[in-house]
Amino acid sequence: MSTTIDSTPRADGFRMPGEFEPHAQLWMLWPQRPDNWRLGAKPAQRAWVQVATAVSQFEPVTVGVNNDQYENARNLLPAHVRVVEISSNDAWMRDCGPTFLVNDKGDVRLVDWDFNAWGGLYDGLYFPWDKDQMVPLKISELERVDRYKAHLVMEGGSIHVDGEGTVITTEECLLSPGRNPQLSREEIEQHLRDYLNVDTVIWLAKGIDPEETNGHVDDVACFVKPGVVLAAITEDKADWRYELLQDNLRRLQAATDAKGRKLEVHTMPMPAIMVITEDEAWGVDAAEGTIPRVPGDKTAASYLNFLIVNGGVIMPAFDGPNDAVALSTLQRLFADRKVVTVPGREIVLGGGNVHCITQQQPKG
Amino acid sequence: MSTTIDSTPRADGFRMPGEFEPHAQLWMLWPQRPDNWRLGAKPAQRAWVQVATAVSQFEPVTVGVNNDQYENARNLLPAHVRVVEISSNDAWMRDCGPTFLVNDKGDVRLVDWDFNAWGGLYDGLYFPWDKDQMVPLKISELERVDRYKAHLVMEGGSIHVDGEGTVITTEECLLSPGRNPQLSREEIEQHLRDYLNVDTVIWLAKGIDPEETNGHVDDVACFVKPGVVLAAITEDKADWRYELLQDNLRRLQAATDAKGRKLEVHTMPMPAIMVITEDEAWGVDAAEGTIPRVPGDKTAASYLNFLIVNGGVIMPAFDGPNDAVALSTLQRLFADRKVVTVPGREIVLGGGNVHCITQQQPKG
Repeated sequence: MSTTIDSTPRADGFRMPGEFEPHAQLWMLWPQRPDNWRLGAKPAQRAWVQVATAVSQFEPVTVGVNNDQYENARNLLPAHVRVVEISSNDAWMRDCGPTFLVNDKGDVRLVDWDFNAWGGLYDGLYFPWDKDQMVPLKISELERVDRYKAHLVMEGGSIHVDGEGTVITTEECLLSPGRNPQLSREEIEQHLRDYLNVDTVIWLAKGIDPEETNGHVDDVACFVKPGVVLAAITEDKADWRYELLQDNLRRLQAATDAKGRKLEVHTMPMPAIMVITEDEAWGVDAAEGTIPRVPGDKTAASYLNFLIVNGGVIMPAFDGPNDAVALSTLQRLFADRKVVTVPGREIVLGGGNVHCITQQQPKG
Repeated sequence: MSTTIDSTPRADGFRMPGEFEPHAQLWMLWPQRPDNWRLGAKPAQRAWVQVATAVSQFEPVTVGVNNDQYENARNLLPAHVRVVEISSNDAWMRDCGPTFLVNDKGDVRLVDWDFNAWGGLYDGLYFPWDKDQMVPLKISELERVDRYKAHLVMEGGSIHVDGEGTVITTEECLLSPGRNPQLSREEIEQHLRDYLNVDTVIWLAKGIDPEETNGHVDDVACFVKPGVVLAAITEDKADWRYELLQDNLRRLQAATDAKGRKLEVHTMPMPAIMVITEDEAWGVDAAEGTIPRVPGDKTAASYLNFLIVNGGVIMPAFDGPNDAVALSTLQRLFADRKVVTVPGREIVLGGGNVHCITQQQPKG
C-alpha cells in the first residue's frame, strides 16, 4: 500500500521535524530476547509498560510485538495502547525504526535506513538483524505512509535535528568502520542532507558507549528547540567521560546552525556511575558473540536519553542524587510541558533508555 | 487500542451488514503451509495474487502475512495492496477472521468468534490453530475497531446475512459435534441473534463438503440483496449432491425473512465435478491427522463461493462448460456491478474459494 519513492526527501520538499514538533503517535517495540534482558525479559517488559503508559498520557502509542509475545504484551499494556504484530530481533525502535518526514502540505513520509545492529559483522551487537531491518517497511505499509529507501547504515539514535536545517551527530558513530566504510565523511554528509533535508551537520566527536552504539548522540546532546541545545557534562574530572563531554560542549558552543544562529547551550549533569549488581547480571542467557554482563560493569545511563512528546517530556530516573537536578533542568527548559519520570535502570541494563526505545511519528 | 466490549451487538444497536453493502476494505491472509498447498504454496500464492489484484480494482485490500513470508508476499502482491504482519496457521480469512458490524451512526465494531479449525479435536482440519484464533483481536487493534468476544465456535463461511435481520446457515455445520456440542439449537440461535443482530434464522440442512467445513453455507446459498437469494443446484440426479441441493432450494422457497418477505430464489448450476489430477496431488507435505490428497479425489468447487465487492463481483472460474452460465447468471443478478472471474481451481485444492479467503470490512 505504501510506495517506495525513487527520489530524495530534499528533492521532494520533505524534512525530518524536530522531536519537539507535534506528534501523531509514538512507536515502540516489545522486548523479549533472553540473551539481552534478564529473567526472560520480564523486568524489561514492566519498564516498557511504564514508558508506554507515561507517553500515552500525552499521545497515542503503538507497540510492535513478535507473534509469540502478542498475548502477553496485549495483556500487560494499557488497553488504550495499540498493539500490532511487527517482528523484531530486539526492541530498539529508535534505531531500527523509520525516520518520519513531513512537508509543508501536511503529507507524511518516512526514511528506511539500512540497519546492521550497530556495526554489522565488524562490531555489531547481535546477529542476525533480519527482522529489525524490516520494521520501517512494515510501518510504512501498516500506516500507508510512502517510503524512501536510504542506502546508508544509520540508526535514529545517532542524529538529532532542529527541523530547520541542522543535524547534530557524532564522528565516533557515523564514521565508524562497522557502518559505511566505503563512504567518505562528505558522502555521509550528503546522505544526511538528502534524506533529512538539512544544510548544516554539527559533528561532535564521541558519545559515552563506544562498545554498544559507538557513541550515539542521543546520550550526550539534543535540541530543546531551534537554536537551543542541551549537552551532558560531568563535573568529576576522574570520570573517563569528562573530557569527551567537555569537547562536545565546546563544539556546540562554537557551532552555528543552518539559520546562522549561534547555539544557546545548556548543560545537564550525568547520573552517578551506575554499576550492575549481582542480581542484575544474573538470568541472562548466554549467546555467542554478545557482550557478557558481569557484576561491576558500568552502564551508559544518561538523563539526555529522554523523549519529548506532545505537552510532555519523559525522563529516565535512576534513584540518584542528580535525578532532582535533571528534573528541574528539564522542567526549566521545557516550561510549557509536563516532565514525567520513569524508572530508567532496567532499560539501561539492555543498552539504552527512553529515547532509544521510542520513535515519534509527526503530525501531518 | 481497541476495547473489548462486555455487551452484545444487539444490545448496542450494531448489526452485520450484507456483503452487498459498501465496503471500506477487504482482508485476506497469505497462504504458505506446505501440508495443505502443493509445491510450497507457490501456485496458491499466485492464485491469491490474482484474487487480491481483482478485488483491488474495486476497493482497498489488506493482506495479513506471517513474518517469514512478508518479503515474498510484499514482492508478489501489487504495490497498491497493503501487506501487514498477521500470523496465521492457514489462509482462510473468512473463517478465522472477524465479522464486522456497523450501527446507524457509522461506527464500526467487530465480533471475535471462537475458532477451532472446523471441528477442533473432533474433526478439525489441523492442529494447532493458535495463530488463526488471534486474527480478529489483531485486526481490531490494528484498525482501532472495538471488539465483541462471542463464546461460540463459528466461522464466517457458515453464515450469510441480508443486513435486515435474516441469516442463512446450515444445520450440518452449526449443529456439528465439533463446534458447540454443549449448546442447544436454540442457544446457538440466540448467539446469532445477539452477535449478528438478526431475528430470523433460516436453516438449510447441508453443504457440499462434509469432511472439510462440515457444510458451510457459502458454497451453496447466498443473498443477492435483501429478499433475493441464489442457491446452488445440479441437474445431474446421479450426483450425490443433487438431493441436498434440492432440499436447500425447497427450504429457501418456503422461507420467510425477518421483514416477512417470501424470498425470491434464483438458482446457479454447479461446476462439472472437478477431480484432482496426479500433478495436483503431488508436492504436498505429509502431516499426521490431515486429509491425504489422492489423485481422483473430488473437490468442493462451487460458483457460489464468489465475493461481492464495491461495484463488482469476483467469481471463481473452473475452465468448465458452466463457467459461462455462472458468469451470465451473476451478471444478470448483479446488473449494476462488474463481474470479474479469477482462476478458482488452485484455491479449491486447499478446500475453499474466493469467498473463503476473504473478509469484507464495511464502511462506517
